[in-house]
Formats: sequence, C-alpha cells, structure tokens
Amino acid sequence: MIQKQLVAEFLGTMMLVATVVGSGIMADGLSAGNDAVALLGNTIATGAILYVLITVLGPVSGAHFNPAVSIAFFLKKQLSAKTCLCFILFQIAGGIAGTMLAHFMFELPLIQLSDNARSGLSQYGSEWLATMGLICVIFGGIASKPQAVPMLVGLYISAAYWFTASTSFANPAVTIARSLSDSFSGIDPIDMPYFIGAQLLAIYPAVRLCKWLFSKQDIKGAA
Amino acid sequence: MIQKQLVAEFLGTMMLVATVVGSGIMADGLSAGNDAVALLGNTIATGAILYVLITVLGPVSGAHFNPAVSIAFFLKKQLSAKTCLCFILFQIAGGIAGTMLAHFMFELPLIQLSDNARSGLSQYGSEWLATMGLICVIFGGIASKPQAVPMLVGLYISAAYWFTASTSFANPAVTIARSLSDSFSGIDPIDMPYFIGAQLLAIYPAVRLCKWLFSKQDIKGAA
Amino acid sequence: MIQKQLVAEFLGTMMLVATVVGSGIMADGLSAGNDAVALLGNTIATGAILYVLITVLGPVSGAHFNPAVSIAFFLKKQLSAKTCLCFILFQIAGGIAGTMLAHFMFELPLIQLSDNARSGLSQYGSEWLATMGLICVIFGGIASKPQAVPMLVGLYISAAYWFTASTSFANPAVTIARSLSDSFSGIDPIDMPYFIGAQLLAIYPAVRLCKWLFSKQDIKGAA
Amino acid sequence: MIQKQLVAEFLGTMMLVATVVGSGIMADGLSAGNDAVALLGNTIATGAILYVLITVLGPVSGAHFNPAVSIAFFLKKQLSAKTCLCFILFQIAGGIAGTMLAHFMFELPLIQLSDNARSGLSQYGSEWLATMGLICVIFGGIASKPQAVPMLVGLYISAAYWFTASTSFANPAVTIARSLSDSFSGIDPIDMPYFIGAQLLAIYPAVRLCKWLFSKQDIKGAA
Repeated sequence: MIQKQLVAEFLGTMMLVATVVGSGIMADGLSAGNDAVALLGNTIATGAILYVLITVLGPVSGAHFNPAVSIAFFLKKQLSAKTCLCFILFQIAGGIAGTMLAHFMFELPLIQLSDNARSGLSQYGSEWLATMGLICVIFGGIASKPQAVPMLVGLYISAAYWFTASTSFANPAVTIARSLSDSFSGIDPIDMPYFIGAQLLAIYPAVRLCKWLFSKQDIKGAA
Repeated sequence: MIQKQLVAEFLGTMMLVATVVGSGIMADGLSAGNDAVALLGNTIATGAILYVLITVLGPVSGAHFNPAVSIAFFLKKQLSAKTCLCFILFQIAGGIAGTMLAHFMFELPLIQLSDNARSGLSQYGSEWLATMGLICVIFGGIASKPQAVPMLVGLYISAAYWFTASTSFANPAVTIARSLSDSFSGIDPIDMPYFIGAQLLAIYPAVRLCKWLFSKQDIKGAA
Repeated sequence: MIQKQLVAEFLGTMMLVATVVGSGIMADGLSAGNDAVALLGNTIATGAILYVLITVLGPVSGAHFNPAVSIAFFLKKQLSAKTCLCFILFQIAGGIAGTMLAHFMFELPLIQLSDNARSGLSQYGSEWLATMGLICVIFGGIASKPQAVPMLVGLYISAAYWFTASTSFANPAVTIARSLSDSFSGIDPIDMPYFIGAQLLAIYPAVRLCKWLFSKQDIKGAA
Repeated sequence: MIQKQLVAEFLGTMMLVATVVGSGIMADGLSAGNDAVALLGNTIATGAILYVLITVLGPVSGAHFNPAVSIAFFLKKQLSAKTCLCFILFQIAGGIAGTMLAHFMFELPLIQLSDNARSGLSQYGSEWLATMGLICVIFGGIASKPQAVPMLVGLYISAAYWFTASTSFANPAVTIARSLSDSFSGIDPIDMPYFIGAQLLAIYPAVRLCKWLFSKQDIKGAA
C-alpha cells in the first residue's frame, strides 16, 4: 500500500514539474519575446496536468505532490508523521526527476543552476498568500464538493500564476526542482529557501482558518 | 453563523479583486503592448478564481461577493434587509482589501486613484447589460442546474470581459475597489458612480425577468 | 409555454450573436494586428457563452438558437412545423438584435453591411462540415450524456472556429446577423446565401447519420 | 455492431486529424510569426475536439482513435486480435481522410509530403513519454472516474502539446496522417517510423505499470 502511494507521489510530482518546466521552455522558445503569451502556454499546461494527475492518482495516494499539503494533512492528523516524511522525500525526488526529464526532452544539460532572481518581501508575501490559498481551496473543496478538488486545484493555480507576483510556486518540492532549471520557470537557488520558508509559514494559519470556516456543524446546504 | 458568512464574503471579494487587479498588472506588464494578450491573461485568471471561490465558499455564505447579487436575493426575499446590508459592507471592505493586497504583491502604492477613463452611454449600457446578464445567469442556473452555478458564473464573466465595451465589472464592490488602482483594470473614480448606478438599475428588471422566465410550473424537463 | 420558449430563443440568439460580434470587435481592436490572438479572444468568449446560454435556457426552450438545429428536431418529429417556424423567426430576429446590441456597446452604427468576403467552395464546404458536425454532436450527446450537451456544443464550436476555413458559422440566423456587421466576425451579404445553403444541406445527412450511428438498440454501455 | 464501431473509429480519427491539421494551418496563417500563439490555437482546438469526440463516440466504439490505445486494450484482453486489427486499419484510413479534409477546407493540395523535421533522441523520447502518459491517463481514469475520461484525455493532450519537445503526437495513426501535410503540424515522413516506433514501445510498460498501480484490491476510496 505505502509502496504504491510513494510511487504515485514520485510520479505525480515528476510529471507536474516536467510540465511546469517543459512548458516554460517550450512557451519561452516560441513566444518571440512576448512573456504574457509564454505565461499563457505555461498556465494552460500546468492547470490541465494538475486536473489530470489529481484525478488519476488521487485514489492511490491522495495526490498531494506537495510537502505543504502533506504537512497540512499531518497537522489535521490525517497522515502519520512517518508517512508524511516519506511522502515529502518522494515528492522532492520526483520533482528533481521532473526537471531532469524536461531538460532531457528539450536537449538541455540535465541539472542547471537557475539565475532567475525572485527576491523581496513582495515575492515572499506572494508565496505565503499562494500557499495559504491553495490549502484553503483543498480543504474547502473537500468540505463542499470533494469530486471537484482536481478542477479546483487546477483552476486555482491557473489563476494564481497571474495574480501573484511570484507566479505562485506554492510548493516546496516544486521550488527545489525549479531551482535546478535555468529557464523560464526557474528560480535562483539563493532565493529558494525564502520561498520555501514563506510556503511553510502559510500551513498552520491555513489549517486553522479552514477548521473554523468550513466546520460542518453550522453550515447550510451547499449551492 | 452570520459571522462566518461575513468573513466568507470579505475573503471571497478580497480574493476576487486581488485576482482581477493582480492579473491585470501581471498581464499588462508582460504583454509587450498587445492588450488582447493582456486581456486573455486577465480573463483566464478571473474566470478560474470565480469557479474556485464560488465552489468553496458557496456553502458558507452563498458566495455573492457582489452587492448587486445580494440585493437581488433581498428582492426575492431570500436575504433579510439587515443581512443584505452587512453583506454589502463586508463586500466593499473586502474589495478594497483585495486592491491593496494586489498592490502589495506587485510593489505598488497600496491605494491609488485610477485615471482609466471609462465613460459614455455605451460604457454604462454595457454595465447595465452585463449585470442584467449576470443575475439572470445566477437565477437561471439555480433553476436549471444548481451545481453548475460556479462554472456558469466563471464562464459568463469570461465571455462578458470580451463582449461588453466596459469589460463587464457588473459588481458595485468590485467597481469601488478598482477605482483605487491606477492599473490595467482600474476605473477613474469620476466614472465609478455611473457604473454603479447602471449596475443597480439592472437588478430589478433582472429579478422580474427571471421570475417569469424560470418559474417552475410550466417548464418541461431540462435537456 | 410557447411564449416563454420564443422569448428564450430570441434572448439566447441575441446574446450569442452579441457575444460573437462584440468579442470580435473587442479582440480585433486590442490585438495589434495579430489575428490569431483576436481569434483566441473570440473563441473563448463564444465557447463560454454557449455553455452558459444552453445550460440556463435549455430547460425553457431546448436552447436551439439555430434554425438548422430546429429543423433537425423537426425532421426527427420532435418539433411541430408551426413551432419550428416560430422558433426560426425569433432566432433570426434575436440574431439581428444581437448585432445591434454589440454595435451599440461599441459605439458603431447599429446596422452595417459587411464587406468581409468569405467565398469559394472551400468556405462553403467548411460550413457544410461544421453544421454536419454540430448536429451530430448535439444528437450524439443527447444519446450518450445529455447533461454534457452545453459543454459539448461550447467546445465543439471552440474547436470549429479553428479547424474550418470559414471559422464555422454553422447557423443560418447567426449568418444573417453577422452579414449586418462590418467587423472582425462579419460576412459580406453576397456570400450569406451560399453559407446558409451549405448549412441547410447538412441537416438531412446529419440526421440520417445520427439515426444510424447512435440508435440505442445495439450500443454497449457508455464509457 | 462491429460495422458501427469501425465507422465511429474512422469518423473520430478523421475529425481529430482534421482538427489538428486544420487548426494548425489556421493558427499558423493568422499568428504573424508568433509560434506560441499558433500553438495556443492548436492546443485549444485539439483539447476541445478530443473531449467532444470521446464523449459522443465513446458509447459506440470506445473512442480509441489511436492504434496504441487499441493495442493496449488488446494486451489487457479487452479487445480481440481481429477487432484490434480492424480498428487500426480504420483509424489509419480515417486519419489520412482527416488530413485531406483539412487540406480541402484550406484550399491546399490534398496530399503533401511534410518536410517538418522532428528527429533526435529527445524527440523520440518525448513520444515515448507522451504515449506512456496517455495510456496511463486512460487506464487510471477508467479505474478512478470513468465518466471523466473524455476530459482527462483532452486536458492531458493540451498539456502534452507544451511539455514535450515533440508536441506529443502519441498516436501512430495521427503520425501517419500528419506526415502527409506540409504545414504547422506536419512531420517529415523520414522521421515518421521513429515516432511510431517510440509510441509502440511505450504500450507494454504502460499497461504493466497501470496494472500494478491502479489494481483495485488495495486502493482506498477516491478523493
């Protein structure tokens, strides 16, 4: 059981990162310098693959693909400490494999160091908000319409690519993986720890807010 | 109960406006002067977040995020005068917070005055039609397929961004909030009252039309 | 009953054409001469509003908004000759009202004659194929998954905007309405009768093909 | 029964290829040299028509439209060798008809030889991965949420157009058909056998992986 779950977390995070990085390279290469067009291609690919991966792998492992989400489930006592830790390790490994896979497909050096600077309080604040929002969307979705969660996550990230200044990484494993790609979606390794810190700081307040806002007892029937 | 509802209306309107304003700033900055590309980014982000927010917060407060919608429910006697008034205040406050949040993320002055002129009978007529359409879509959706309302509203606004000359604000709280952003999605405060007036004038005819068109008694089974 | 149906056909066709023409004007004006970007905006708006209008008005009138569809239902004996004729008249009137509405919103002369030439066998063949496909999608969808029809029609037309050389009018009422707009989505009135002829010629073969292909008796369970 | 199935496979593959090739020609012609915009149009049309064709024709034939998918069902003993072979022949014939249909609509020579070079290990690896992913998405979707398969395939291919270096043909019949079009979506006939080889090599490992990963016995309830 746990073996399948870990493989699912590895493969899902790998495909997610391969899509984010690969579509970034593809879009950037074709867009003739119009970065909004490149971000459109990046957005459509990412939102689409999130819906696909969460629908298909959700029944196997829960389809977290994201240490911040696994930790949130741990805080809600729905994941043991040991399973959570294993999930995180396989997510990080899967993410790095995803970057290498994208680089292989586009004939680039498999591992690179990005020099895509993404620093400053606005960037870190964006990541805090993006992660807070992501966790609230997942727990709110589970409370209101569980079968819509894959669509909710795909569309939330599609929006967050545009409304946050950081294009919404919102995922420590993906952040690590993207620090290893010197391409459109990369992030300078120097900025990486701050992004991850901001993401981790969003988990506890998000879990608390959701617990209060979506508690079943006094909610009327869903629309 | 009412406390949670008001928080949901505040947070939902805040995230809606943060998305509209933030994605406008992002898209405008990246699009190399091609405003249609910028509007595409703005459209995808707004349509996506509407589906997300209405699905997740619908069971908590009904997910109006819009004084025109709350007033329509009041006219249909499904919301008390007092609750309606509270909703409107929290929607307006949430909208303003959303503008400030977007400005914070993009390192802009938190409050600005837009000089994005949007005036003339065509613009006001566009807002009247857009609001009329929005209310009809909501009540028509509730009558025909309630679980589709989040998708209906997201896709209606996605279309209305393009088919109305005003890009379809259709929401007094959002109009106030957007008058405080001197960016792609802003509106000159001088034009704001006319937009809100046109939106408010659409509520009563929309409620009347829906009452007649979607009354249950003589409708055959849905397609 | 019939009164509501006719109003629904009028309003639905009006909003459909207002969206097609209005989003064409908006997209063309903003796209800095990149017609593919303009067509993207036109596509997203049209696909989205089709889903919305068919979902909301389907239970009222069936949501044809298209004489070719009404005639197909007449051939299948699911619509009387008289009702079919009334539907067509209200669809044509609604379409013309939609063009005028779009022109009003964008401050253009309400009625214009398009000089957007769309002629030749390839164009007419495109219209025949597009209409054939539309009718098959509707009847195939009714046979396999009725609640998906609004999404099927919206996505079929989104695709057909791109894969046919004529951008897929596939609708005589919309063709008439678009001959009255000298804008992105217009059609020279001289070409209009050929478009309508090609569309009408697709109805009978489409109905026959669907009757054979989607007959219930020997179909295994849907995926 | 088998007759209808073969017609469905022929028509479905024909419309799929007509959409891929036709939208490529349309998008390329309009995009003023911005290939990312062209790929966006190509993506939206392809993803949309996949959802439509699989939903409508799924109950008739299973809606494979792809020899790799038919062979995978044969390996799972859900399709007889004879039916599988017939499916493949009709898929190939349908694909070629689709190319000719697109060329007819855009007034091009009906059959052409592409000189769109797509060679190298990265390209072939992309095809292997894309086909592997497609088969896993189909069998994973059948295991977790069968009614979502049309949306899953449409969105998977939408993403794969961007994250693979080859834009993800992932279909031997489509690859043959696209070698006959010297346009945006074409492929030099010299590269065609390598693409098909890579696609075929993905089938067996995909079936094995799915059998292990999605086996029902020890999976907890879907999200």
